[in-house]
Formats: sequence, structure tokens, C-alpha cells
Amino acid sequence: MFRIKCIVSYDGSKFFGYQRQLKERTVQGEIEKALKIIHKTPITIQSSGRTDAKVHAYGQVFHFDTDLDIKQANWKRAINSILPKDVYIKEVKIVDFNFHARFSVKIKEYRYYLSLNEYDPIRSDYVCFLDRTLNINKIKGALKLFEGTHDFTSYSSSLQHKDKNKIRTIYKAQLNENNKELEFIFIGNGFLRYQIRIMMGLLIEIGLEKKEIEVIPYLYEHHDRSKARFTAEAQGLYLYRVEY
Amino acid sequence: MFRIKCIVSYDGSKFFGYQRQLKERTVQGEIEKALKIIHKTPITIQSSGRTDAKVHAYGQVFHFDTDLDIKQANWKRAINSILPKDVYIKEVKIVDFNFHARFSVKIKEYRYYLSLNEYDPIRSDYVCFLDRTLNINKIKGALKLFEGTHDFTSYSSSLQHKDKNKIRTIYKAQLNENNKELEFIFIGNGFLRYQIRIMMGLLIEIGLEKKEIEVIPYLYEHHDRSKARFTAEAQGLYLYRVEY
Repeated sequence: MFRIKCIVSYDGSKFFGYQRQLKERTVQGEIEKALKIIHKTPITIQSSGRTDAKVHAYGQVFHFDTDLDIKQANWKRAINSILPKDVYIKEVKIVDFNFHARFSVKIKEYRYYLSLNEYDPIRSDYVCFLDRTLNINKIKGALKLFEGTHDFTSYSSSLQHKDKNKIRTIYKAQLNENNKELEFIFIGNGFLRYQIRIMMGLLIEIGLEKKEIEVIPYLYEHHDRSKARFTAEAQGLYLYRVEY
Repeated sequence: MFRIKCIVSYDGSKFFGYQRQLKERTVQGEIEKALKIIHKTPITIQSSGRTDAKVHAYGQVFHFDTDLDIKQANWKRAINSILPKDVYIKEVKIVDFNFHARFSVKIKEYRYYLSLNEYDPIRSDYVCFLDRTLNINKIKGALKLFEGTHDFTSYSSSLQHKDKNKIRTIYKAQLNENNKELEFIFIGNGFLRYQIRIMMGLLIEIGLEKKEIEVIPYLYEHHDRSKARFTAEAQGLYLYRVEY
């Protein structure tokens, strides 16, 4: 028996999200379909977490257990030869059984791409377009307030009330500007569902000077989704890296 | 009566090519559908030329005639508000009736993107991946031989025998390298169907050292598709600019 760790990248635009569904095309579904062909029996994968519909990944991680004694490099070739063109295994590693793709996660990095340029149909599934002027200094000030350990209940989906612990640590929240192309980097020990898109929505409102940065400490104290109502579009978001 | 010139960009990946078809989704079909909604009567557009399935455009040009007295800026907003997200009108201009999007073309520029990096599923519809080492100097030497006025019969689709004149002038054939990302620029007075993809196929074979650059002058003299058999993938090709 072997435990296999894989790093996978995918184009989220043509999937109904990551997690397996009975009738819809999903990333997990395509990977498990490929593994079933190789194993001639169903294989379930364990992933670092799900991503929502239209969200992309450069470095999602999953693992599975197998009886097959195949070399690392051959695993990569075998799985990729079956996968559709919008999913690609970048790295395969045979790992210890105490490794778990979800429970062993130490760090996750997400990136969000926001373009202030005129709309470009060729990039419409891969970046969020906003044909407006933003106050970048206010956004940078707000990003600093996201760093640290905070209660992110106000930034979580209302569906998620069962998950009690909504305290997370963000090690780094950074903006890189390249003319009118903005790259947001978020590195933390984990993120709630929709958290980054709700944070991005608030950052955009702060940049548009519709909200002041004081709303951020306020929302740590007061659990009030009504002050962070705007969820930024999914297609600008990338799961960039998972560290163990 | 007014003649309206439009510059349009589109993501070719979800279209069955440019030209209107009865049953399939095409770029021309989507534009004419939008114009029909605005005019409440069918409108036919005239374009600089067609592009094939999966080929993208940053600067395709078309014109149409209209009775509607609408300002330039309002035309742009009106059409874009109806078009799907993978087609976008960048510029609208009211022009003279002696302008014709097809017959007045002076210069066309195409670009082709070839990546020698490892496959990336997020870019698979937008660049051609080739995980091989190419002899860049040989490719640059070959590009020089494409410049000038030549008989490109050997580089045309075999379907196109009716089009007698296959002499075209290429003003510039250039390669820009950015690490392992290659940008090919082709500027000419016009191109035959598949011409650039067949030229690219030959350039790749020359870069792989499967063919010598002497094949290029040979093919001007001898009309022999069997020596230029490989047509590069469509998704790396962009109609970049049309000048009048």
C-alpha cells in the first residue's frame, strides 16, 4: 500500500466547482474518473479543501492510497494522459501515511487578480475587471488590518453557521501593482468559505471610498455580514499554493 | 444612412469560428444577433476576413450600414450591453461610405504564442504548448526568409484552389522571446487561409531541426504541401490588428 500526494492545477471556468457531484462536471470527479481507469476500481481522493465554481488553482493538493507499485514519474504521466485538458497534475510524490492532504495543511496561499483596464473578453474567465479608479493607498492600509489572528465570522458564508471556530491567522496580505493590473496575495493558516471573496469585496468598496478602513476592526468585534455584503467575482481567485 | 466601423476583440475558444453558420455559435452570428435587437430588423456585417475556430482576435474589424442616428460612444455601449462576455466592441467610428472592412484593408497583423514551459491548463485555450527545446537561431533565420513578396501556394489550405492569386507580401516576421514564452509577429498585406499556422508548423519543425531553412525558398518555387504538412494548433493564433 502506498500513499500518493499530488499537486494539481486546473482552469475552474468549465467546472461546477471542485467537490464531486452526482451529475455535474467537477475537478474531483475528473480526477477520480482517471484514477478509476488506472485502478479498475473506484478511488476516493482527499483534498486540501474545496474551491468554488469558476475558482482556479495552480497548486491544489490531494492524496490517495493505492496498491499499485508505480514510480513517481510514471504516476504523473499516467494520470495526465487520461485527464481532460483543463486539469493537470504538476507533481506526484510517494509520501508517508501520516501525511493527510486536508489535516496536515500548514499554510494556504490564495491570489486574486483585479484589472482596472478596459474589459478584455479573452481574459474574462481569469481576472475580475473593474473599469473604475481605486484609492490604492486606502486598500494597502486595509490589507495591513487583515494580517494577524482575527475572528473572521463576518467574512464567512451565512451557510456556514455550524463551523464554530472562525478564528484564522493571516500571515501576509499584500498588493502588487503592475500599472492597472492588481495582484492580491493572501497567505494564512486557512480560510473560511467565501472569506477571500468577501474580503476582496470590502477592499474594492474601500478603494472606491464607499467605506472607511475602520469597518475592518469593527467587523472583527461585531458579527455583521450586512457591512460586508459584496462578494467579489469568483473568476479572479486562484488557490496558489498549499504547504505542509 | 450611416456606415459604422467597429473594432472587436473576442475569445475564439467557445465559437465555431467567425463566419455566420446556420446552427453553430459564431462571432459574426452573435454580433448580427445584437444588431438585430437594436435595429429590430436583420443587419449583415462586412468583416476584414474570417478567423477559424479557436482563433482569437484583439483587433478584428467589421462595418455595417444603419439608418439609426446614434452617437459613436452610445453605439459602443449599446452593442456591448447585448453581446455575450466573450465578444467585446473596443471602438466604434462613423465612417465614409467608401470605407469597406474587407476591400479597404492595407495591413493585417497576426500574432502567435508558443510556450516552451510545462503545460498549464489555465492557458490551454490561449497559447500553444510545446515541451521541447527549439533552436531559436534557426527559427530567426527562417523568419527572415518569410519577409518580402512570395508565392505562398505551398502554405495554403488544399481546399482553396479556386483562389488564383496566392502571392502575398509579408512586411515583418519577427520573434520576441521572453524566457520560454515565444511571441511571433507577422505583418503583411494579407494572408491565405491557414497560412500562418502552416508557416508556424514549418518554423517548429525547423526549430526541432527536423527540417532545414532551405525548405522555405524551395517551397516558393515548388508548390508542395507535402513538405509543409504540419499545421500548428489554432488556439495560439490572434488576429491582432487591421489597418486601412
